[in-house]
Amino acid sequence: MITLGEIAKIINADVVGDDNLIISSLSTSSSANGDQLTYIVNDKYKQELIRSRAGAVIINKGLLDDCPTNALVVDDVYLAFAKTTHLFKKQISHSHGIHSSAKIGNSEISKSCVIGENVVIGENCTISANSVIEDNVIIKDNTFIYPNVSILQGCLIGENTVISSGVVIGSEGFGNARDKQGHWHAIAHLGNVVIGDNVTIGANTTIDRGTLEDTQIHDGVRLDNLIHIAHNVVIGQDCAIAASTGIAGSTILGKRCMIGGMVGIVGHLNICDDVIVNAKSTIDKDIASPGIYTGIMPLMSHKKWQNIGMWLLKLDKITKYLNIKLKDLKAK
Amino acid sequence: MITLGEIAKIINADVVGDDNLIISSLSTSSSANGDQLTYIVNDKYKQELIRSRAGAVIINKGLLDDCPTNALVVDDVYLAFAKTTHLFKKQISHSHGIHSSAKIGNSEISKSCVIGENVVIGENCTISANSVIEDNVIIKDNTFIYPNVSILQGCLIGENTVISSGVVIGSEGFGNARDKQGHWHAIAHLGNVVIGDNVTIGANTTIDRGTLEDTQIHDGVRLDNLIHIAHNVVIGQDCAIAASTGIAGSTILGKRCMIGGMVGIVGHLNICDDVIVNAKSTIDKDIASPGIYTGIMPLMSHKKWQNIGMWLLKLDKITKYLNIKLKDLKAK
Amino acid sequence: MITLGEIAKIINADVVGDDNLIISSLSTSSSANGDQLTYIVNDKYKQELIRSRAGAVIINKGLLDDCPTNALVVDDVYLAFAKTTHLFKKQISHSHGIHSSAKIGNSEISKSCVIGENVVIGENCTISANSVIEDNVIIKDNTFIYPNVSILQGCLIGENTVISSGVVIGSEGFGNARDKQGHWHAIAHLGNVVIGDNVTIGANTTIDRGTLEDTQIHDGVRLDNLIHIAHNVVIGQDCAIAASTGIAGSTILGKRCMIGGMVGIVGHLNICDDVIVNAKSTIDKDIASPGIYTGIMPLMSHKKWQNIGMWLLKLDKITKYLNIKLKDLKAK
Repeated sequence: MITLGEIAKIINADVVGDDNLIISSLSTSSSANGDQLTYIVNDKYKQELIRSRAGAVIINKGLLDDCPTNALVVDDVYLAFAKTTHLFKKQISHSHGIHSSAKIGNSEISKSCVIGENVVIGENCTISANSVIEDNVIIKDNTFIYPNVSILQGCLIGENTVISSGVVIGSEGFGNARDKQGHWHAIAHLGNVVIGDNVTIGANTTIDRGTLEDTQIHDGVRLDNLIHIAHNVVIGQDCAIAASTGIAGSTILGKRCMIGGMVGIVGHLNICDDVIVNAKSTIDKDIASPGIYTGIMPLMSHKKWQNIGMWLLKLDKITKYLNIKLKDLKAK
Repeated sequence: MITLGEIAKIINADVVGDDNLIISSLSTSSSANGDQLTYIVNDKYKQELIRSRAGAVIINKGLLDDCPTNALVVDDVYLAFAKTTHLFKKQISHSHGIHSSAKIGNSEISKSCVIGENVVIGENCTISANSVIEDNVIIKDNTFIYPNVSILQGCLIGENTVISSGVVIGSEGFGNARDKQGHWHAIAHLGNVVIGDNVTIGANTTIDRGTLEDTQIHDGVRLDNLIHIAHNVVIGQDCAIAASTGIAGSTILGKRCMIGGMVGIVGHLNICDDVIVNAKSTIDKDIASPGIYTGIMPLMSHKKWQNIGMWLLKLDKITKYLNIKLKDLKAK
Repeated sequence: MITLGEIAKIINADVVGDDNLIISSLSTSSSANGDQLTYIVNDKYKQELIRSRAGAVIINKGLLDDCPTNALVVDDVYLAFAKTTHLFKKQISHSHGIHSSAKIGNSEISKSCVIGENVVIGENCTISANSVIEDNVIIKDNTFIYPNVSILQGCLIGENTVISSGVVIGSEGFGNARDKQGHWHAIAHLGNVVIGDNVTIGANTTIDRGTLEDTQIHDGVRLDNLIHIAHNVVIGQDCAIAASTGIAGSTILGKRCMIGGMVGIVGHLNICDDVIVNAKSTIDKDIASPGIYTGIMPLMSHKKWQNIGMWLLKLDKITKYLNIKLKDLKAK
């Protein structure tokens, strides 16, 4: 139990409102309720502040007039938020072997596994050698965990799901606030990873937990090896993603997308259902129409590449020299 | 022991031929013998069907007239094959510590390792802390396994080979059949990974087992960190592959190739001996001549890239506007 | 203790000078002192040979006249160096559980960890389940190690540092010498990895140890998941590097650089302070000015890409056809 006043002291904020309000947890501005704290990073999100039903909000001084609730006023909202997250991170139990509070169905658990406090494992699961299942993880029926897997606190794994060796589920997201000295301050990620039924996850793939909400892998998804799924990403039902692809934070994939290997998808994008992207492409903008997409440099002899590269870097000057205007090309 | 009739019931197929034929295992159409089952996915492979000496074959109705042996007739051959593979997947022993059936030479095995049933480890090997060696793995003399390695059932590791921490050998291949509802059905991969002598494999690299035959890493190969080697890939002798490269399924590399870091190689390609590929390139077609290859966008200021990108996306229209034909460029 | 004469026998070299000189270790030509051995790979580094204060140097016959100290004369210097490194690699202790010589402050060490000989762990650290800390590692105060981490012999981890699951620190660098038969000979990497204070390292990231000197991650650096950091790389203070990026050997990053995801950085480069590189770009040359850099092919429909690719591969011929000269573009 922590009060708004106590948080204010730790993050060096001014309280405008009720110091004694007990804050149960952090939430997003749209989801937070009366015993939760949220943050509004700048003026751009003023309307979200006005509509918020949070118990309190971390804001700049300039937003005080629009604040409908208790406020923690700071100079750097994102940095203050980063510091606040650590106050709400659960400590884990450092259990050894299988914790006495774990509820395990008729499943095969290797003796060299570590199973944390309050873990729930269903029927007919296999947890193979040297895997670690931290506190409060739930694993549903018929799920198979290969050796040397790490499933970190609070994550949820559905039925009939297969998790390959070396996979990490629930690692901290890569979210950091930068202070005026250029130093980074990690955000403690308080969301979990929620994985649906009939999912397979390939070797050494990593899935980060969400910041405040959950990273989601929906039913039927296939993830190959060495894939990176960042915080708050949502992968829609029956997507298949080939090896070594990376998806940055908060991007949402629709259903049945097929993403080739080593594709990079930048953050905060929306990809619609039934999108196919060829291997090695970069997705750097929203995709709103199903179809097949590509964006790579073709392979050629190194000599050819050098000849072409020279002119490629001058395409803008070539069009200028030829006096070609964009409008000239419209009808072509 | 399973009969053709029993398989037919499980995968919902019609038997044309001998229900009572005992099927020992699955194999490819060219390798299968009289007690093995294979599959022919469509008409394109009709000649392979005609030549096959398999005990039985999963086919479409349309291929029945060309089938020289017993048939399991289904609508969706690949899906039926995917379901059949699971009938032939070996269960592992869930051993703890070192299994009593393991044959271990004069080698150093860390007490925290798990060594499965019928594992064979030669002389002068080291298996470091917290590594897991599953059932039926063979590791030859003088091989060094670093901590936290997973070598999964049935794989073979040669002499004088070094396997770095976090490596996964024998993970399931990324092969899935899709049903009419758009759901994926995993293929149980029944091949192994066979690694030769004098190989080094870098940290957190993953090598998937083959579908029916083995994924092969030949003698003297050097693999750097975080590489993905998919099912059925063959890496020829003395190849060196730099970090974070990925090779998709069934691609074959010749001898002495040098592949730079973060190169993507798509599936089902043939790369000849002595090919050098620069870092970050994409190999999207066969390479039949030794030499140096490249295909990347050069780095430039972001502003320059924006200017060039605008014209790059209109190259086809520029040539049309200038009335340039491909034949005009022949002599140039 | 090994003498120059003993080394000469093992690597098949001729000694010119004092056979009985005791060699304590290997070092670079600029750092080596009187009891150290170094190597000069060819004529290009003649000035370094002349200035070297090493006790002995591995060289070609052709450099003998310029050699100011004892020499081991061989045909293939780099291959001889590769073989020599193995003579100086420390064997590890194969300890089980926590070695009696380890010095551990008031810290939480999971019982399933393996802690090697002479490890030093400070106050208030957590070493989570199934992590392996090899001999002579030092971990300073308040550092948190997640489950299934491998920190290999001799590495140094600073204060307030967080190392995520599946991370490998101190794996061997990808350095190999090739003999006349085209076979590779691994270099035993004798440097360590030195990680500063307030660093975070994401899941399944790998950091290789240096060849003779240390790979360095300076204070305040943020590394995301699945990153590859090769031997001898130096990452300057407060850099942030997103997931799946790879940095090849001996590259040096300045301070406060922000590198996007899946960027490839080739070896032996110098990147200055305050460089920002967008996701998926390739850095293939030094960067001497702060700023934002990019180099990727934009995403487009696959059909569009095919149309453009056709002309892209003929850019050199198009400019020839249009009779455009580089000098024509100068003023544009």
